[in-house]
Amino acid sequence: MIITMNPNARKEDIENVERLIEDFGYTVHPIHGTNLTVLAAVGDERGKEGLYDRLSSQHGVDKVEYILPPYKLVCREVRKGIERPDTVLKIQFDWKEGKGSVTLGGDELVVMAGPCSVESREQMMESARLCKESGAKILRGGAFKPRTSPYSFQGLEEDGLKLLAEARHEYGMPVITELMDAHHLELVDRYTDIIQIGARNMQNFMLLKALGSTKRPVLLKRGMSSTIDEWLMAAEYILSTGNNQVMLCERGIRTFETKYRNVLDLNAVPTLRKLTHLPVIADPSHGTGQADMVTPMALASVAAGAHSLMIEMHPDPAKAWSDGAQSLDGPQFAELMKKLKPVARAVNRTTPW
Amino acid sequence: MIITMNPNARKEDIENVERLIEDFGYTVHPIHGTNLTVLAAVGDERGKEGLYDRLSSQHGVDKVEYILPPYKLVCREVRKGIERPDTVLKIQFDWKEGKGSVTLGGDELVVMAGPCSVESREQMMESARLCKESGAKILRGGAFKPRTSPYSFQGLEEDGLKLLAEARHEYGMPVITELMDAHHLELVDRYTDIIQIGARNMQNFMLLKALGSTKRPVLLKRGMSSTIDEWLMAAEYILSTGNNQVMLCERGIRTFETKYRNVLDLNAVPTLRKLTHLPVIADPSHGTGQADMVTPMALASVAAGAHSLMIEMHPDPAKAWSDGAQSLDGPQFAELMKKLKPVARAVNRTTPW
Amino acid sequence: MIITMNPNARKEDIENVERLIEDFGYTVHPIHGTNLTVLAAVGDERGKEGLYDRLSSQHGVDKVEYILPPYKLVCREVRKGIERPDTVLKIQFDWKEGKGSVTLGGDELVVMAGPCSVESREQMMESARLCKESGAKILRGGAFKPRTSPYSFQGLEEDGLKLLAEARHEYGMPVITELMDAHHLELVDRYTDIIQIGARNMQNFMLLKALGSTKRPVLLKRGMSSTIDEWLMAAEYILSTGNNQVMLCERGIRTFETKYRNVLDLNAVPTLRKLTHLPVIADPSHGTGQADMVTPMALASVAAGAHSLMIEMHPDPAKAWSDGAQSLDGPQFAELMKKLKPVARAVNRTTPW
Amino acid sequence: MIITMNPNARKEDIENVERLIEDFGYTVHPIHGTNLTVLAAVGDERGKEGLYDRLSSQHGVDKVEYILPPYKLVCREVRKGIERPDTVLKIQFDWKEGKGSVTLGGDELVVMAGPCSVESREQMMESARLCKESGAKILRGGAFKPRTSPYSFQGLEEDGLKLLAEARHEYGMPVITELMDAHHLELVDRYTDIIQIGARNMQNFMLLKALGSTKRPVLLKRGMSSTIDEWLMAAEYILSTGNNQVMLCERGIRTFETKYRNVLDLNAVPTLRKLTHLPVIADPSHGTGQADMVTPMALASVAAGAHSLMIEMHPDPAKAWSDGAQSLDGPQFAELMKKLKPVARAVNRTTPW
Repeated sequence: MIITMNPNARKEDIENVERLIEDFGYTVHPIHGTNLTVLAAVGDERGKEGLYDRLSSQHGVDKVEYILPPYKLVCREVRKGIERPDTVLKIQFDWKEGKGSVTLGGDELVVMAGPCSVESREQMMESARLCKESGAKILRGGAFKPRTSPYSFQGLEEDGLKLLAEARHEYGMPVITELMDAHHLELVDRYTDIIQIGARNMQNFMLLKALGSTKRPVLLKRGMSSTIDEWLMAAEYILSTGNNQVMLCERGIRTFETKYRNVLDLNAVPTLRKLTHLPVIADPSHGTGQADMVTPMALASVAAGAHSLMIEMHPDPAKAWSDGAQSLDGPQFAELMKKLKPVARAVNRTTPW
Repeated sequence: MIITMNPNARKEDIENVERLIEDFGYTVHPIHGTNLTVLAAVGDERGKEGLYDRLSSQHGVDKVEYILPPYKLVCREVRKGIERPDTVLKIQFDWKEGKGSVTLGGDELVVMAGPCSVESREQMMESARLCKESGAKILRGGAFKPRTSPYSFQGLEEDGLKLLAEARHEYGMPVITELMDAHHLELVDRYTDIIQIGARNMQNFMLLKALGSTKRPVLLKRGMSSTIDEWLMAAEYILSTGNNQVMLCERGIRTFETKYRNVLDLNAVPTLRKLTHLPVIADPSHGTGQADMVTPMALASVAAGAHSLMIEMHPDPAKAWSDGAQSLDGPQFAELMKKLKPVARAVNRTTPW
Repeated sequence: MIITMNPNARKEDIENVERLIEDFGYTVHPIHGTNLTVLAAVGDERGKEGLYDRLSSQHGVDKVEYILPPYKLVCREVRKGIERPDTVLKIQFDWKEGKGSVTLGGDELVVMAGPCSVESREQMMESARLCKESGAKILRGGAFKPRTSPYSFQGLEEDGLKLLAEARHEYGMPVITELMDAHHLELVDRYTDIIQIGARNMQNFMLLKALGSTKRPVLLKRGMSSTIDEWLMAAEYILSTGNNQVMLCERGIRTFETKYRNVLDLNAVPTLRKLTHLPVIADPSHGTGQADMVTPMALASVAAGAHSLMIEMHPDPAKAWSDGAQSLDGPQFAELMKKLKPVARAVNRTTPW
Repeated sequence: MIITMNPNARKEDIENVERLIEDFGYTVHPIHGTNLTVLAAVGDERGKEGLYDRLSSQHGVDKVEYILPPYKLVCREVRKGIERPDTVLKIQFDWKEGKGSVTLGGDELVVMAGPCSVESREQMMESARLCKESGAKILRGGAFKPRTSPYSFQGLEEDGLKLLAEARHEYGMPVITELMDAHHLELVDRYTDIIQIGARNMQNFMLLKALGSTKRPVLLKRGMSSTIDEWLMAAEYILSTGNNQVMLCERGIRTFETKYRNVLDLNAVPTLRKLTHLPVIADPSHGTGQADMVTPMALASVAAGAHSLMIEMHPDPAKAWSDGAQSLDGPQFAELMKKLKPVARAVNRTTPW
């Protein structure tokens, strides 16, 4: 850590800070400049948040900054020396034709698709059919819905989970669905293959801590105004409970621009690929909010290096109970998948469709 | 609602939308311009989110906009005709000298103060003493702490709640503490007088819905990048469950500026005073992140029209386990309270100290 | 325009607004709802800003909103019915081997590249050679530099312009350079083929108006926190002076994220392709600020639909006088161009290299 | 400066950076940690931007950070040891009754008021009369208007300047007006007492540099998404040309919130008071965009520590040619001034009205 002292800090302030650093087990390295003093605390600072907090409030201290990122387990460096340092997830499931599996985080481009909300058996079966037909490997659908308004549709809950499980059984696609509360974990876990943590819950720390008790992979969406560091720290929460199967999904950030629902921050993709070993997913549906922007931004996401895409697809968007405006219909989704193939190939990703 | 059709929308698109509006029980009012058609759906649109969602995804629709705000119960107009439309909360409690009460939302400026985290009996007792001595009426302290890092101090939990209750008993100040998970509600409810919902949980809808089962007043902090409308909708969640005792606390928003932790958005204060009947609180400690900015911004908050302030105070900030950098010590807090008096008087607020 | 009256507006307020609308030559269309009145002003509202300003300040008016976008000349609809509605620019120039030309805005992917600042003859010649060798068609280089600090290098000015012209003469690449002040227009115009208006000057309206007096194409960068509408209005300023040769360059927006210099907003690409007929360029160098992010984001920009890229390239970035951290060196640039080819082809763009 | 090397940096990378630091005349101070090396460059780094740029692009360098702020002349520390370190401006002028003067930056609260645009003699005279009557000391009015749309009213130009001068002559108030282009400086300088640089031109560096040739005080508005550091650097541009009479005006920043035109960032007020010796002004008219928010936010600005306010006032806002929605009329302005008195007194500011 680098501690910048105030130009007006007194000698005893500096000594006090030096003592504190040593008390925490670090080596102090003072640099006395012409105008002020900078102290370096040398030692592995990761996981020792206490020192940061304490230093920030000492008399005469102007600023405290980390040198190493404050996360450990999600860091790419953790895998240093390993031949293929990327985390590759293998999702296994049962369906009517036996055992199935999907591998995510490797060379293959994996597409997750399906409706925003689970609405009915018909809608889910038709969605699954259309998704599978075009090459999607994982089926999404919300049974618990975080809605801005208490008067909006809140999801079918367990009935929705059952429909997801039925669709998996029939079509052989593992399913992903959102978990909104730690106390639904057991229930959701019973039906789903991947647990999604939504943007609004990225810093619901009680929920993150609960994920240690499941073996399911977790897809962690970025909070709508969360920094990359906060996002990786949220992932660190999950890994630190013992669940290493985490993927990160960029879904757009909030800015001043009102022309689209969010700004899909594709800068996050190469940045995450550099900082962490976890798989990176992009969600151009939420990242734009408009069906006619999904295809170009899906292509861009793959070109930027995403391992996987999450796409909202609905057999009849005009009748969707939520997010219809950003959902592709069957033919639009088929068209997207067709266009994805050459772009994926151009960046050395394979496509199983 | 105002529905703007695309300039290229076909006649059947327009008719389809008109039919949909009527199916939802609204009257259609079409305006055929030279370039495009606008449809107005006349009727009380509040609480009918379904129509908005459906309209947005119809073919040929460009944009759907609310005319009335999408919240009902929190609206100032709900209290139209009432002599004093503002919600005034009366917080009642027991302590060693009998019954006590604090009134918030009226003419009196109410100051809530105390440490970020409950750390020990000594620290809480000393905090309570210093707060009370200078004129604070409500005591704050965190027992469950939402921390960005899993390696940071996470709070004393029930032990912390007990210390808060002890301080109340001794000093006659009702206490406020944060609730992070619906399943701690019963526990927290047992000890606290006011329940705080933190910025990161403003859209934790499961938590908001759970608050209907308590009679405690709720202080709802603004999410760090939540709009005023989203914030009022989050309050609407609570009111719609039957709990009307809600106050709104501005605590700074996230912007591009890195010089301070957040930007305390005081524009929110007159805006909320105009839009809602709920009391408005400002938190200049989180809104700035720096102890030396707290006093000027506290004065500004009162001048802008806040009913109450929430201030972080610690007997020894340099030893605080969290947020020491933004905490005032006893003498600084006493000085703030002294400076608040004439400003409060200048805007016609009384001060009980 | 849609004018929402306040629920408390009086009859005379409404009549007053109706009269004002008619005075401006529009037809009024009142919609009396249960809670409030909405007035629609029907007629072509574009180019009549006066009404908007006046309506906003009338008594009883809550909100005024445009239905049509406030720009006219840059609108895609202006070209309705034309077979190829996109503006295609043909940049013609002379060099030692005779006449040359570059076409931008059509099917071919055009890459502009070169150093941030013109530093010396050697540096420019070497840059031009490396750019041309790898397939770039247009050479960039700054002679007037907008620098945050008055103590930073401010550019070689006319000497720099001369070096650009020399490089064009030698290598047959038209050049683009930034114009920072209307009173340098004549000077810059004498040497350059394309005039760049930088992000900080996007709303320097005096500068925009001056561009009517040149026949040179203009590349207009997006302001770092400008909305799409403001950007298109800035382009409208230029077109309204008679210069139709405008291209729009996305170069990253300012957000809360500090991990990268800017967030390259690729959502802007499909949005502009939909709204305007002007060519769309992306600048992943400024959009990321880091050399190792340039290649993935350049690929993403092309996949999203950009007609052209602007890339910072320097023969020796470690010695660059400005922006070295985001500049590619020769081999890195060659590698980028190689990777661009298959992505361009995947989205049906041709590559002349 | 603190240079953080990449964990993978080689020995020669480190040595190379050390050599570069020494070449620039600094002392190197290396700190070899367990994971990486940090280098401190000790010496006065201010005014030596070149090193920062160069270091950022060296091989193996991860991050370069300033320890001291990159501005010198605007720094509060420059005035260290002086009894009253704040810059106090004395604006002198002639009018029909002889010589007049206004002092800004001291204990007195100075209010600048007047219409957004100069529209006519009648309007300016009436504005001046109303402003003076209520206690405003300085008269504002725009003769050159930066407008988002080329179709909006662009200002009366020299005719407007003449009307401002007439109003000064008649009412004895110095005038402030915006300068948009360096080549109008001579013209504007002839009529005005204070030159305003608007938000959109805060980083129009050609314009800033030109201000060295005038002796007039300059009011520099904050760019709508400029950081405090960029703002102070823009002021540094002006001071570095020899003009020391600069004041800083907070006028609201751009955020995600759409409920108001801007967010008046009052955190900037105590921050600037701490960092610089220049006077600090707040503009709650642009900072909110709504007339009914101006009064509470004006009170808040004074409570936060602003030396002066800039308020838009129009005799008849409903007829204003620009910004009517945020302008107070005469009685509203009189009411504001009345309310300001006790708040100013509460924070130890005198009021001359």
